[in-house]
Amino acid sequence: MAITETAVRLPIPALPQGYRVAGVHAGLKRNPAREDISLVVSDLPATAAGVYTTNLVCAAPVTFDRGRTPGTGFRAVAINSGNANACTGTRGLADAQQMAAVAAARIGVEESAVLVLSTGIIGEFLPLAKIEAGLGVVAEKLGSDSQAVIHAARGMMTTDTRPKLSGSTFQAGGKHYTLFGMAKGAAMVGPRLATMLGIVLTDAAIDASDAQALLSEAAEETFNCVSVDGHTSTNDTVLLLANGAAGGKPLKGEALAAFARALKNACEALAREIADDGEGATHVLRIEVCGCRTRDEARQIARTVADSPLVKTAICGADPNWGRIVSAAGYAGVSFDPQTTQLKLNGTLLFRDGQPVPFSGAEVSASIRAARETLIELDMGGGTGSIRFYSSDLTAEYVHLNADYHT
Amino acid sequence: MAITETAVRLPIPALPQGYRVAGVHAGLKRNPAREDISLVVSDLPATAAGVYTTNLVCAAPVTFDRGRTPGTGFRAVAINSGNANACTGTRGLADAQQMAAVAAARIGVEESAVLVLSTGIIGEFLPLAKIEAGLGVVAEKLGSDSQAVIHAARGMMTTDTRPKLSGSTFQAGGKHYTLFGMAKGAAMVGPRLATMLGIVLTDAAIDASDAQALLSEAAEETFNCVSVDGHTSTNDTVLLLANGAAGGKPLKGEALAAFARALKNACEALAREIADDGEGATHVLRIEVCGCRTRDEARQIARTVADSPLVKTAICGADPNWGRIVSAAGYAGVSFDPQTTQLKLNGTLLFRDGQPVPFSGAEVSASIRAARETLIELDMGGGTGSIRFYSSDLTAEYVHLNADYHT
Repeated sequence: MAITETAVRLPIPALPQGYRVAGVHAGLKRNPAREDISLVVSDLPATAAGVYTTNLVCAAPVTFDRGRTPGTGFRAVAINSGNANACTGTRGLADAQQMAAVAAARIGVEESAVLVLSTGIIGEFLPLAKIEAGLGVVAEKLGSDSQAVIHAARGMMTTDTRPKLSGSTFQAGGKHYTLFGMAKGAAMVGPRLATMLGIVLTDAAIDASDAQALLSEAAEETFNCVSVDGHTSTNDTVLLLANGAAGGKPLKGEALAAFARALKNACEALAREIADDGEGATHVLRIEVCGCRTRDEARQIARTVADSPLVKTAICGADPNWGRIVSAAGYAGVSFDPQTTQLKLNGTLLFRDGQPVPFSGAEVSASIRAARETLIELDMGGGTGSIRFYSSDLTAEYVHLNADYHT
Repeated sequence: MAITETAVRLPIPALPQGYRVAGVHAGLKRNPAREDISLVVSDLPATAAGVYTTNLVCAAPVTFDRGRTPGTGFRAVAINSGNANACTGTRGLADAQQMAAVAAARIGVEESAVLVLSTGIIGEFLPLAKIEAGLGVVAEKLGSDSQAVIHAARGMMTTDTRPKLSGSTFQAGGKHYTLFGMAKGAAMVGPRLATMLGIVLTDAAIDASDAQALLSEAAEETFNCVSVDGHTSTNDTVLLLANGAAGGKPLKGEALAAFARALKNACEALAREIADDGEGATHVLRIEVCGCRTRDEARQIARTVADSPLVKTAICGADPNWGRIVSAAGYAGVSFDPQTTQLKLNGTLLFRDGQPVPFSGAEVSASIRAARETLIELDMGGGTGSIRFYSSDLTAEYVHLNADYHT
């Protein structure tokens, strides 16, 4: 399996105060140049919230973390890639707990202060000896500089070609706060909830219930509006840690609203990065659906367009085959009137009043070829419900990657 | 776009009594070796029933035929490929009517005795001059031998690599009846109703209401259990014509039940052929789901597995990556207990009691490589609902075909 690694996008965002991270190779992946164990440590006890996969077959780390969040007093997140610890039954759950316990011992905190994340192959037991050894090494390498951040972000990657990072600052009540996010996800990315692994860190103080509510809301608007292949993972998790290291009391009112905006922006940036780095992708599809009766109906149409292999291959081929888009909307299971529906592709009107609009196929095709992002705008003309959704195109490289991933 | 054409499967089934067919090239497809206009004529007035796409954006011929079936007195079905006459508004509907009128004039029947089928590119108006010329030629070539059948079946093909035919005979009340079916479909095959174009002909006499009920039932069990890419077409149609040329009164009771069995078998054979000839496919997936509370729940799980790009690429790669299958079931939106779920791949048990079962990956992989059909058996252990579903694998060739189809 040949994955072309591309450089991380610069600049590398700064960690908030009071966090240290690291990533190392511990032998879970075959390639020794690939980190597969990461550790995120908060020097102060942090509030933690989580959103998790809705897959009925959920992985052991999901069950483990779900039982602990939202809550307070968290000190670390231990992460491995190369093995999902999913479909592993009671032994898998014991392994997740053991991973948390070893991480806790290495950094000198209670086992109950640790969360775990796993991603990789489904249906194999965790190689605990390697993980324990790796946690010993990674705990010695914790840092807060750019290199530490990159290694930590790489330690959660599977077929990702680059780390996905996001950073911002916001002001509230005269104080400056920092928000940092890192994520992974390039396949098995379906839009049913959190659609990948992600961690967002802040040095603001946030009450656990506020953290959970705002993270759920942000995930719904961002990670839940991304689909690479429509396959909801067993392991999808987004964690938010807030350690209060920047000082001040837990944010409320206007200050909390400022945090909510920064959080949503961070999640949106990471979500878009996931679509952009979709396995084998040559295009990001930005699908804007409006004119629906409700936001949920808009989402349903956008998701159906986003997941249609025929739409995804058309964009791969820079082919303005818009009938595939309109017909995908038509089987989304949402009622609308084709007579009031309009479709634009990269700004060119292609379909209106139930009929094709004459256009230059060569020009639209050239516009698809010219840009990484393809804009699909569907206006159903029937209401105010709207959504923005990200997807990726379907390429022969996606097939090559996934026909060869396991063996 | 290079499509490898493979030979039609032998033997060619016989037409029932009282039908003649033909297919010619009329310039709708670029390649002059490809038929694109077909005509099916019944020498006696026939009962007709139809099942149609559930896509909200349905093509003009679907609207046209839906208004006429079920009914009696039908004499012909005029078919074109290369253009779907979909997303073409009121002009499209007028064009469908014109196509029926021209066919009627060529064979000397009333316009109301003709049904139409179109398949091909969406969003372009029918090239009526070519179609009218083609109908003139095809009406002169009508016949009932094998060559006529092959030409007619080829005239409804798009990216199919071979005609899909099915034939059988059945006895009832001391009489012999014949059933003949032909179908097309290799992409935009989603399992929401009839999932392609199909025509089933019989020389039995069947009342229109019986014909409609039995066709709907057969389609539900067969065409509605096939998915190549999950994309429900704008044009899906299956028509049943029964002209009574074999003599006798309309079938009832046991005789009707014998016909129903023959009809279901014919539809199942055609449905399986469609999955087998899925664009770029190297494997047919036979997905047997049982142990569900209802048949609909079993269908929902089977369809989700059938449409997962990760499952489809795994089979393409002969990769026994069973976690993708179990996790696809997990996001099907149907409640089940992973602890009671069992998965077998080509007969080898891989998952039970929520945990992996040790197996030889090399042996299972070899079994996938060795056969055109891959058998996926999921037993959810929670009831008596079950289903058989067909799909195809996802290959790089599918992407090549669909990235280049339009331009």
